[in-house]
Amino acid sequence: MDANKGKGDQGMQNPGGQLDRPVTFNFLESMLPKVVKRRVHALKRLQVQCANIEAKFYEEVHELERKYAALYQPLFDKRRDIVTGTVEPTDEECEWHSDREEEEELAVSTTLDIFLIETFQKFKLLYVIVYIALLTVQEEVKEKAAIEDAKKEEAKPEEDPKGIPEFWLTIFKRVDMLSDMLQEHDEPILKHLRDIQVKFSEPGQPMSFTLEFHFEPNGYFNNAVLTKVYKMKSEPDASDPFSFEGPEIIDCEGCQIDWHKGKDVTVKTIKKKQKHKGRGTVRTVTKQVPNDSFFNFFNPVKASPDGELDEDSEFTLATDFEIGHFFRERIVPRAVLYFTGEALEDDESFEEEELEEGDEEEQDEEGDEDDDDGDFDPKA
Amino acid sequence: MDANKGKGDQGMQNPGGQLDRPVTFNFLESMLPKVVKRRVHALKRLQVQCANIEAKFYEEVHELERKYAALYQPLFDKRRDIVTGTVEPTDEECEWHSDREEEEELAVSTTLDIFLIETFQKFKLLYVIVYIALLTVQEEVKEKAAIEDAKKEEAKPEEDPKGIPEFWLTIFKRVDMLSDMLQEHDEPILKHLRDIQVKFSEPGQPMSFTLEFHFEPNGYFNNAVLTKVYKMKSEPDASDPFSFEGPEIIDCEGCQIDWHKGKDVTVKTIKKKQKHKGRGTVRTVTKQVPNDSFFNFFNPVKASPDGELDEDSEFTLATDFEIGHFFRERIVPRAVLYFTGEALEDDESFEEEELEEGDEEEQDEEGDEDDDDGDFDPKA
Repeated sequence: MDANKGKGDQGMQNPGGQLDRPVTFNFLESMLPKVVKRRVHALKRLQVQCANIEAKFYEEVHELERKYAALYQPLFDKRRDIVTGTVEPTDEECEWHSDREEEEELAVSTTLDIFLIETFQKFKLLYVIVYIALLTVQEEVKEKAAIEDAKKEEAKPEEDPKGIPEFWLTIFKRVDMLSDMLQEHDEPILKHLRDIQVKFSEPGQPMSFTLEFHFEPNGYFNNAVLTKVYKMKSEPDASDPFSFEGPEIIDCEGCQIDWHKGKDVTVKTIKKKQKHKGRGTVRTVTKQVPNDSFFNFFNPVKASPDGELDEDSEFTLATDFEIGHFFRERIVPRAVLYFTGEALEDDESFEEEELEEGDEEEQDEEGDEDDDDGDFDPKA
Repeated sequence: MDANKGKGDQGMQNPGGQLDRPVTFNFLESMLPKVVKRRVHALKRLQVQCANIEAKFYEEVHELERKYAALYQPLFDKRRDIVTGTVEPTDEECEWHSDREEEEELAVSTTLDIFLIETFQKFKLLYVIVYIALLTVQEEVKEKAAIEDAKKEEAKPEEDPKGIPEFWLTIFKRVDMLSDMLQEHDEPILKHLRDIQVKFSEPGQPMSFTLEFHFEPNGYFNNAVLTKVYKMKSEPDASDPFSFEGPEIIDCEGCQIDWHKGKDVTVKTIKKKQKHKGRGTVRTVTKQVPNDSFFNFFNPVKASPDGELDEDSEFTLATDFEIGHFFRERIVPRAVLYFTGEALEDDESFEEEELEEGDEEEQDEEGDEDDDDGDFDPKA
């Protein structure tokens, strides 16, 4: 169902909106009697006023998001500390029942309780003993379950991992939009990714948000944080006020990665043999050429102010905006659900709902909202 | 592009959400070492806390929407007064240039101005006369245009229509999701539709919004206003907190239409001949059966609390929720753009963007976001 696709977009309705929609001359309108036409024009002027009010609304929503970002942050910090192994959660903090476990226990205890009541009614005098006996049974059942769990453990390789190993890398691998960018040589680097954070622009500043990729010290680059800034615009376009659908990403900016010598995965060095025309001597020259890598994400194609971009660059840029939006709205707020895959199930089920609406195309297994973007390379 | 589909959904991310998505047992999770698994469970508990904060966020967005509804209302009232002919907008209020007119005028005046400057430089002394002369030319050009306009007028049937005739009916006809519901016998009734308004629930009340269809006195029913209430829920579901995507429509309620005798288009009377077994006498009995009509919109299928609905009813209900959402988010806020068709062009261009992403299906001419819902009949 269509409105489902709005999920999580309260802050930015239209990230790709910088691809303008033309306002074409309207036939019906031109056929109206002049007196009616001028009234329609009056309504259009009112509509422009509505668009300006709407812009103010989205600015306030942005403020709300900044306010709530502060409320989420302590939870996200806790998440980072658990992921990196800085903090070991208490047993209470880890209490969680998968549906299955729940059912099992529920089954056990309810049958026991019913039995208990009946027993209680039948031989009131014995009920204490019976009660204790039955509690013991219940305990035994639980112990048995525990032992089985333990057995499962033994099956696995004995290890004592720190935090949640490869937490973010696993997410990159599971989410199609990200795995499209991911190259094998990126994976060892992303194992050092400790956290991804979203920072909103300060009030009064031009509207924007920044993705911060926090890395632990690693052998690849010196930056502790890689940043990608997405600049937004929240005013109706004077030339086309009716296309306004809320803040839209209009530009983005990466950052300089301070690679260790020979570790830059965004370029590859190719050797070329050159033969000297005259002497016929052969020398080898090395040349650096661009290389596919997620880290090209931090060196995006520049949006030109006059919107003069070739189709490829425009599509690449739109895809980049999509990805930035997806990090902000989905990955960062609910990372664990992309790690476990639960969020992917959600996204799939949306596609299924789309299918219900007569869409014929086939869906792939781990589809997320933004499938089919194809391989992503900001330099393409 | 996907996030575009979020357009206008800031207030309700998930109108169709009442169709639950199952949380299936996760394989990867079950394969993790126990120590890691418990940390993931800790993250899930944090994620539940995030969902609860998110719920608060959406409540505040709802408050914002109520606040802004009050800011839009004067403009919408003005719209209604112009549509109904209660108010005649001033010339200033009607000033509007379609792209084409603009170009024409621009062309005329610039050539004149350039000519003017050259002339001015050539014979400085005569420039005043020339200037006047050329102004006259410019006037003549404009007059000519005016006359041509007038001619265009004559071509049309002479009439003095009140306000903007059939404003809302035209919208119903142009928007596929609405025309799907529309029957021929509905049209004369909808000519009496003066306004559609959205009313939000008061703070402290359970979240909901009401669509109000305001009719002028008419020969069909006594109600001045027909209402459809959409009840929403903005808390994560305890059994499935991660499926929470913001407020969702969980139920809707129509209203009793007080039809004039024999005017109810939602039923049709069929005559049946019955033959008496014994005497063989034939008598005619009349029987009322449901009839397709937009006005069935005010008698929706009931959502059952336990969610026990057959597939058809569930789809019908989901479609009804879609339509309510569409009235609230698109039709009411920008009615004039659906009247002129400009909003439809926008909606089309979104579909085209979807196509870019490898979607093969064909689009129809006047596609709006929620095409392909098929015929709608709440009683189906």
